[in-house]
Amino acid sequence: MIIRIVAGGPEKELPILNMNPETDDQWIGVDRGALYLLERGITPAKAFGDFDSITAEEWNRIAAVVPDYVQFPAEKDETDLEIALNVAIKQQPEAIFLYGVTGGRLDHFFGAVTLLMKKELDCPVVIVDHQNEISVYSPGETVIDQKEQWPYISFFAMSEKVEGLTLSGFKFPLHNFTVQKGSSRCVSNEILEKKGVFSFRSGILMVIRSRDGRRSH
Amino acid sequence: MIIRIVAGGPEKELPILNMNPETDDQWIGVDRGALYLLERGITPAKAFGDFDSITAEEWNRIAAVVPDYVQFPAEKDETDLEIALNVAIKQQPEAIFLYGVTGGRLDHFFGAVTLLMKKELDCPVVIVDHQNEISVYSPGETVIDQKEQWPYISFFAMSEKVEGLTLSGFKFPLHNFTVQKGSSRCVSNEILEKKGVFSFRSGILMVIRSRDGRRSH
Repeated sequence: MIIRIVAGGPEKELPILNMNPETDDQWIGVDRGALYLLERGITPAKAFGDFDSITAEEWNRIAAVVPDYVQFPAEKDETDLEIALNVAIKQQPEAIFLYGVTGGRLDHFFGAVTLLMKKELDCPVVIVDHQNEISVYSPGETVIDQKEQWPYISFFAMSEKVEGLTLSGFKFPLHNFTVQKGSSRCVSNEILEKKGVFSFRSGILMVIRSRDGRRSH
Repeated sequence: MIIRIVAGGPEKELPILNMNPETDDQWIGVDRGALYLLERGITPAKAFGDFDSITAEEWNRIAAVVPDYVQFPAEKDETDLEIALNVAIKQQPEAIFLYGVTGGRLDHFFGAVTLLMKKELDCPVVIVDHQNEISVYSPGETVIDQKEQWPYISFFAMSEKVEGLTLSGFKFPLHNFTVQKGSSRCVSNEILEKKGVFSFRSGILMVIRSRDGRRSH
């Protein structure tokens, strides 16, 4: 099972969200993200949030159709998104996708990025918006498909450094390279073949696959 | 002197950019950022970029009025923004502000964030967009003003941890707190008094001041 969590960031940043009736994907709405789902004809299995950004009328719309909804006080130690992620993790899904966490307030975005590094994760957790897909990797080898929708791929060290980065099947291949934190040396690579392989020996690696916007570079 | 660098990220993310004729602020345009400046009646002192995102006609507009412009090949080790920042640093300004680096492709954004951690910096470098102000601090004590435009303030560890974080004048004060990387524990604080003071003993601290968007939470 895949769990797809939609948070309440600016709606214009969302990718297209479709419910595929042939899968058992579970959708979770967080704050205004629950409304984004209802507006797309997707009824989330669960809704979480302090809902301080939506009206009582909107909240009633959610409560009327979402089987499992929980409202929290606005002031608490964990963010609503972290609460939703913890609930998702307990269901041991194959993967978790986070939507509605980019754009707008970047403290919320960095809060989401830090969640990708949670120690309790035992499945891939991926942030997706209309121009980007962000994931975090531990040491090892990963094979990824070339995808027309994501022409660019970039690597960043989330630890002090990432050692032994080797890229094959890429426009700019690397062998046993050390990526320092604070280096933008591995930005805007491309996968040239049907599959690309990246591997590294130590550290935490963030991988961003992206595409250009209509006019932005 | 303050140097203000405007890069070519999505224009809708920009804050209001005004040239104050009473200051000797220097403006630098990077890629489409040079056009954003011209459209606002600000002629940048310098323009950099591979300009692969703008047309020949647009490039001619820049070349006609910008005294110091340099065009680079699209494929190179440093990003255009990093080249512009290096040129800015050499002029030993009091501070450098980066605009047009948020939204759109998040590999470009993370590239800009990594620049805030460059070792060669000896002045504050701050990313600003219409909802956020991002800066990075080394250990020590910092006094900051309460600002109506930035009601929220959040702290993230950019190193493995930040030790000894102490906040006074804040809604949620802290004393000698350790912020782990991957923790969103210090998100959405507020400065309650005219000034807030934060200090820490070790690590690299990212501070994000932000405000809500029109509808986003």
